Amino acid sequence: MIVMKRILGLSLLLWSTGLMAQPLKPTGVYPTHWWAGMKNPKLQLMLYAPGAGNYSYSIANPSVQLVKVNKVENSNYVFLDLVVKPTAKPGNVKVSWSKGGEKGSFDYELKARRKGNGTSYAQGVRSEDFIYFLMPDRFSNGDPANDKIAHYKDQTLNRDSMYHRHGGDLQGVINKLDYLKDLGATALWLTPVLENDMPNRTEHGYAITNHYNVDERYGGHLAYKRLSDALHAKGMKLIQDAVYNHSGLFHFSVQDLPMKDWLHQWPKYTQTTYKDYPLMDPYAAASDKKQMLDGWFTPQMPDLNHNNPYMANYLIQHAIWCTEEFGVDGWRIDTYIYNDLEFMNRCNAALLAEFPKLTLFGETWVHGTANQAFFVRNNIKGLKFNSNLQGATDFQTLFYGIQPALNQAFGWTEGVNKLYMTLANDFLYQDATNNVVFLDNHDMTRALSTFGEDVDKLKASLGWLLTTRGIPQLYYGTEVLMKGVSNPDGLVRGDFPGGWKGDAQDKFTAAGRVGREEEVFQWIRTLANYRKNSTALTKGALTQYVPKDWVYTYFRHDSKSTVMVIMNTSAEERTVDPQAFPERTAGFSSARNVVTGAVSQLGRSWKVPGKTIWVLELGKGTPQTAAGTPENGLQKQ
Amino acid sequence: MIVMKRILGLSLLLWSTGLMAQPLKPTGVYPTHWWAGMKNPKLQLMLYAPGAGNYSYSIANPSVQLVKVNKVENSNYVFLDLVVKPTAKPGNVKVSWSKGGEKGSFDYELKARRKGNGTSYAQGVRSEDFIYFLMPDRFSNGDPANDKIAHYKDQTLNRDSMYHRHGGDLQGVINKLDYLKDLGATALWLTPVLENDMPNRTEHGYAITNHYNVDERYGGHLAYKRLSDALHAKGMKLIQDAVYNHSGLFHFSVQDLPMKDWLHQWPKYTQTTYKDYPLMDPYAAASDKKQMLDGWFTPQMPDLNHNNPYMANYLIQHAIWCTEEFGVDGWRIDTYIYNDLEFMNRCNAALLAEFPKLTLFGETWVHGTANQAFFVRNNIKGLKFNSNLQGATDFQTLFYGIQPALNQAFGWTEGVNKLYMTLANDFLYQDATNNVVFLDNHDMTRALSTFGEDVDKLKASLGWLLTTRGIPQLYYGTEVLMKGVSNPDGLVRGDFPGGWKGDAQDKFTAAGRVGREEEVFQWIRTLANYRKNSTALTKGALTQYVPKDWVYTYFRHDSKSTVMVIMNTSAEERTVDPQAFPERTAGFSSARNVVTGAVSQLGRSWKVPGKTIWVLELGKGTPQTAAGTPENGLQKQ
Repeated sequence: MIVMKRILGLSLLLWSTGLMAQPLKPTGVYPTHWWAGMKNPKLQLMLYAPGAGNYSYSIANPSVQLVKVNKVENSNYVFLDLVVKPTAKPGNVKVSWSKGGEKGSFDYELKARRKGNGTSYAQGVRSEDFIYFLMPDRFSNGDPANDKIAHYKDQTLNRDSMYHRHGGDLQGVINKLDYLKDLGATALWLTPVLENDMPNRTEHGYAITNHYNVDERYGGHLAYKRLSDALHAKGMKLIQDAVYNHSGLFHFSVQDLPMKDWLHQWPKYTQTTYKDYPLMDPYAAASDKKQMLDGWFTPQMPDLNHNNPYMANYLIQHAIWCTEEFGVDGWRIDTYIYNDLEFMNRCNAALLAEFPKLTLFGETWVHGTANQAFFVRNNIKGLKFNSNLQGATDFQTLFYGIQPALNQAFGWTEGVNKLYMTLANDFLYQDATNNVVFLDNHDMTRALSTFGEDVDKLKASLGWLLTTRGIPQLYYGTEVLMKGVSNPDGLVRGDFPGGWKGDAQDKFTAAGRVGREEEVFQWIRTLANYRKNSTALTKGALTQYVPKDWVYTYFRHDSKSTVMVIMNTSAEERTVDPQAFPERTAGFSSARNVVTGAVSQLGRSWKVPGKTIWVLELGKGTPQTAAGTPENGLQKQ
Repeated sequence: MIVMKRILGLSLLLWSTGLMAQPLKPTGVYPTHWWAGMKNPKLQLMLYAPGAGNYSYSIANPSVQLVKVNKVENSNYVFLDLVVKPTAKPGNVKVSWSKGGEKGSFDYELKARRKGNGTSYAQGVRSEDFIYFLMPDRFSNGDPANDKIAHYKDQTLNRDSMYHRHGGDLQGVINKLDYLKDLGATALWLTPVLENDMPNRTEHGYAITNHYNVDERYGGHLAYKRLSDALHAKGMKLIQDAVYNHSGLFHFSVQDLPMKDWLHQWPKYTQTTYKDYPLMDPYAAASDKKQMLDGWFTPQMPDLNHNNPYMANYLIQHAIWCTEEFGVDGWRIDTYIYNDLEFMNRCNAALLAEFPKLTLFGETWVHGTANQAFFVRNNIKGLKFNSNLQGATDFQTLFYGIQPALNQAFGWTEGVNKLYMTLANDFLYQDATNNVVFLDNHDMTRALSTFGEDVDKLKASLGWLLTTRGIPQLYYGTEVLMKGVSNPDGLVRGDFPGGWKGDAQDKFTAAGRVGREEEVFQWIRTLANYRKNSTALTKGALTQYVPKDWVYTYFRHDSKSTVMVIMNTSAEERTVDPQAFPERTAGFSSARNVVTGAVSQLGRSWKVPGKTIWVLELGKGTPQTAAGTPENGLQKQ
């Protein structure tokens, strides 16, 4: 395997090489290694070395064939098309080079594949999972030694600023896996952990500068592998955050472009419109579509050209490489709507071809179910583009669902009716259960702040999150009442209290959780752990009723059990008659609140307190009163 | 032909007949007549007569076969299944009856068909049309003699009350056809003109009490035929308003039910939820769907049971009968979403089978393009129900389109962006050009009032109405600045000033139009008449651009011409550079404002005044300055 060297603005120097015969000195070969036994025999190596395009290459290996040497505009790059035959065994492949009188070789390693594709990794993340999403710089600092790395451009380390480094890392995450497992999380999604050697704003990770380096401030390659192993050892899953649309401006291949159209370049800086409509609008102007797709996300993040086949291979191979190297179970795909969508289909298909149980969901920050459905496998005919993406981050049930449900007065199309209406439009998806439902993330106001710091509303939203259709996702700290608005203070990326040695409070422990923090933590913990064992909630059918007078009632049900959920979005008590839902309550005689254990008969009306969600498992036979609860326990909880 | 007699609460009396042999005395046979030469040979006669079910029937006619006599629960009805063979000629068919010793016969007439199916009637209403929609009681009183009819239950006649009769009629409409044609209207849609012999609130016409009588207060059967003929003579079209979902409570067949399930009956009065979601929601409860469809619209309007095959035949045959009898060109279908949708498909198909060029559009007062698309021919896969309806009354481009465009501040998803976004979702329709776009109707606040009585906004909305995709519809009086809010004053159903002899003002004439009324009248007139001859506007493609800074720009274009529309929704002037739309402006050098005639070059920026829409026809060659306009005429208009 080639030991990669970091590129530190050497591009001008590198361009000047190659005038006379001299030894090839690879700066990097990407992918940095590969595996014997992949399903797709094709592999394209990007060799980055001074004057690499001026050399000849050959491979004398019965199982690995050098099919084509692709020279490109910048002679510091050459792209070698290999075929790795099924007969290839793990070991080094000698790649020979020559130029003039000089010749030599380097070794390229084919490793043995991981065991357990689809079972111990690449398992997929589905509606039976519960995703915990965190920013590794902000969750827990397990290794203060890596807080500042001398050779990185960003030398900030200041927990008082939201936009400086704080020092969190992967060892910190590993340290807290028992906490996450106890909370009920089954899958972990982190903002990108790959190298972001940018001058500033490196806390989010979406400006990758070398796809094959894990950021050393997080602990590097080995720490990420340790995290993956630790997760899998606990029966949990790893979701990686993919960034195909752009890289960081200081990515080595941007600073020293292989060719002009490696990026989308514009005569002058042109930003995306951030408007997805031209992608599906039958009346769209081509210029609007082009600016949406090819405009840059920010001046710091050049827009990668997916129609460049070398770029496309580079990204697709990297996704496969990460999955196999780190044992990724699912991918969240950043800024999905800005990518070339035909490229995304090829990329998704390539991943699923290698890892059939893998799942993928894309960030679809759009407005309207039809728009969101456009980006995933949908039920829409006649589109010029048909997505193969499995799921979306479900911004619709957030913006037009749970947020108005709890913040808006009940009206004909307002309040909780919006949540009902949005779910009713699920017929546009092929499988809406692949969508990831959430209350907040790193880009938006935290849930508690969204709900005006009303803990009752937060609990109601969490009750919905864990009982509606789809894959629930919790943003770190919501369980301990972290708050913050996205603009202008950026406090939605605050540190998890207790994640740093010396923190005044440690909210990872019950002792550190004050006021209603422990109540909310236990609320999530109880529902999430109940959910783990409830096939009705994870895989069962959903039946929802037209909301009435601020109250939304729905059921999750399968052959094993029926869970009734009543959400009273009013601030006032409401009376609910369980007999008003005979299709779903027929054959049952009692209801048990799965959080409190309180039990009631179905034969009488219930008084549901304001801003409250009840999650009730229906039962047969004579209602059993839980110890310590009155017979009509639901009313007194 | 049977002369029908009106049923005035005689049901109890009729039930008591039939105890002994006596002559059959038909009260009515429905359809009241039919035609030789219809494509569908089947015909089901509903014979309504005391004890009709106790008689035997026969037809001895080589071309008309009595296939089956259907006796039903109430012996006052019998349903005769006929086959009218292609050999049948116009004339009377003798239907013989017998009971005990008595026997006799009545004649049933087969008429000769109209000439010109698809050319002089049943022509269809398409995007090249411009629909004028009026309430005949409120438009013009052509015959004061029919204002009050003694044998009708509603004896109100009081123009001071919105909910009493005002006296308008079909002769009044006929008198104003030149006015409508001059305005640019090509098709006329009236609220239902069929008998509404209800005790009150008969002004709207949606409580039909006998499908085969035209309300005598409108002039009756002959007046309606005269209107149809007059329209066709002027090259205009007739749209009838169909009401399948319900009838009036005093419909003879409701007062004396043929059978229990003629209607949807409930243990106690149950109103529809008015919520369409359960019809498409994959998570819907069956009970919600049933209440939506089978609940009554109001206590005065019983819900007809379309799953009763006699009822279904009754309604379908009536629709065909009206089309042929009155020369209907298109149908607007009331409360479409409340009907049994499989029945609607059969009804629509039956109409189109007889009249292939006919068009149908349904009232779809729903929220969301996906919901509206569900009710028409759409691009959605996997639905349990697939509609064959051609078009919808486009509530989406109203509620989520032109209203926020002009009333809301410009924002990421607000203001004119909503209009843009809603149109972008047209990919859900098979053909969105069949949708009827409108600014107001008899059930909602009038456009001028919607826009805060801001005439500039009204003009902008009208400019959009006449240049966007779809079939534009104007509600009577909008052109002369009639205003009014729907609740609580109901003033949206006011009288057209000048429609009654002695009215203080006659706004049918230029002399009677005061203030800005004439300006708006001419604005519509100019655009509508320009539109008639612009295939770009009526049939051309639409290209719309992402709105920027309150300004929405779109183009209608075909091989003959290109029309550029700029809508500045801000109250302030905005600068628009026509070069920002190169795909559509390429090859053109000038723009002519089709209303003012002002001309400008495309090479310079334009200053568009606030709350203004410009409709510009692009031209080639050196810009020609219209007489009396400055060279950069657009800026000074």
